[in-house]
Amino acid sequence: MTARTPSRTLGESVRDIPEATVARLPVYLRALNTLAEADTRTCSSEELATAAGVNSAKLRKDLSYLGSYGTRGVGYDVDYLRYQIAREIGVTQDWPVVIVGIGNLGHALANYSGFRSRGFRVVALLDADDTRHGEVVAGVDVRAFDDLEEIVTTHGVAIGVIAAPAAAAQDVADRMVACGITSILNFAPSVISVPDGVDVRKVDLSIELQILAYHEQRKAQLS
Amino acid sequence: MTARTPSRTLGESVRDIPEATVARLPVYLRALNTLAEADTRTCSSEELATAAGVNSAKLRKDLSYLGSYGTRGVGYDVDYLRYQIAREIGVTQDWPVVIVGIGNLGHALANYSGFRSRGFRVVALLDADDTRHGEVVAGVDVRAFDDLEEIVTTHGVAIGVIAAPAAAAQDVADRMVACGITSILNFAPSVISVPDGVDVRKVDLSIELQILAYHEQRKAQLS
Repeated sequence: MTARTPSRTLGESVRDIPEATVARLPVYLRALNTLAEADTRTCSSEELATAAGVNSAKLRKDLSYLGSYGTRGVGYDVDYLRYQIAREIGVTQDWPVVIVGIGNLGHALANYSGFRSRGFRVVALLDADDTRHGEVVAGVDVRAFDDLEEIVTTHGVAIGVIAAPAAAAQDVADRMVACGITSILNFAPSVISVPDGVDVRKVDLSIELQILAYHEQRKAQLS
Repeated sequence: MTARTPSRTLGESVRDIPEATVARLPVYLRALNTLAEADTRTCSSEELATAAGVNSAKLRKDLSYLGSYGTRGVGYDVDYLRYQIAREIGVTQDWPVVIVGIGNLGHALANYSGFRSRGFRVVALLDADDTRHGEVVAGVDVRAFDDLEEIVTTHGVAIGVIAAPAAAAQDVADRMVACGITSILNFAPSVISVPDGVDVRKVDLSIELQILAYHEQRKAQLS
């Protein structure tokens, strides 16, 4: 227990969770959601590990940070573990999000059901192109980039998504930070710099393709 | 050396590379590309590790699987290491790819510069909607889904990308497998099953948002 951590109920983790574990929690949550959709009530660590694509020792270690150890001979309660992980990640709360850049990718993201189902609510789509303003995409208004500050303040937006072209990404990030946004998801194929205290995650849509290419190459070598 | 591995030049890895390392190689490659764009010729393991967002001990361990150890006091040669990693992943060769589903996401993927720059060449966009056939998106023809087999055979396509709605994903995957595709990148928010020998990677665009949410929640707790 550190001075900064208020008292917690028994079973809750008070430790800082390693970054690699944090990155796997959404993967476990997705696997648990799939199990729940199939009406599975309990699962062993081996079943969950297979569904998530990790080994079961790593899974058990990761879940131990959440104070979750399962029940001997029974395994994990799917619904309760979903709740524990969702609470730990913070997706039990509502996260208003703005998306900047309303090209095909911005459109696709606005329509992406996986955001809404995890508590991410797109409150506005912003674009520098005046001719797009007033459009409604996936039930969300397209607004002027100049409205960013007002929208961030009104909705308490902490997370911004950049779906703008690479050349505009740094400008967009600077404006987001100036408006008080402290987490940025960058889909633009460029590196952005931000001050300390602002988190940036970059999505590279080609990473998974490269992993597939590696395995394809191995298959070709072995056949 | 195993019986299956033909003789290799000194310095090349003959070991199977752990999956977690495989998943980080594209991240190192991206970091090295950024360094090269800034005309950086050599870099220390610490610099590269920081750029890639991992710790330097892990980076050195990962690169040791490629037989790449850097030079004491100098570090790594950026261009040579790029080449080594790209060759190991297999992205020094040309990978013809088909995308099925030409909604906003399919459009965005067809336009995505990060595919082309890593050797992934979109040879066709396929859609079940007849009214879209004959369109050209990002220089690529939109064709009928029924043309899949012909396209796979003609271009030697090993990798298929599913950008179709969730309800259609399994059908698309089955058809891809029947045509000889052995690696599938699934953007649809649904789980698909495939026979042994076929690799599937799933892209969940919300995973990175969830990691940001975790950190936002921590910031809020600590402030």
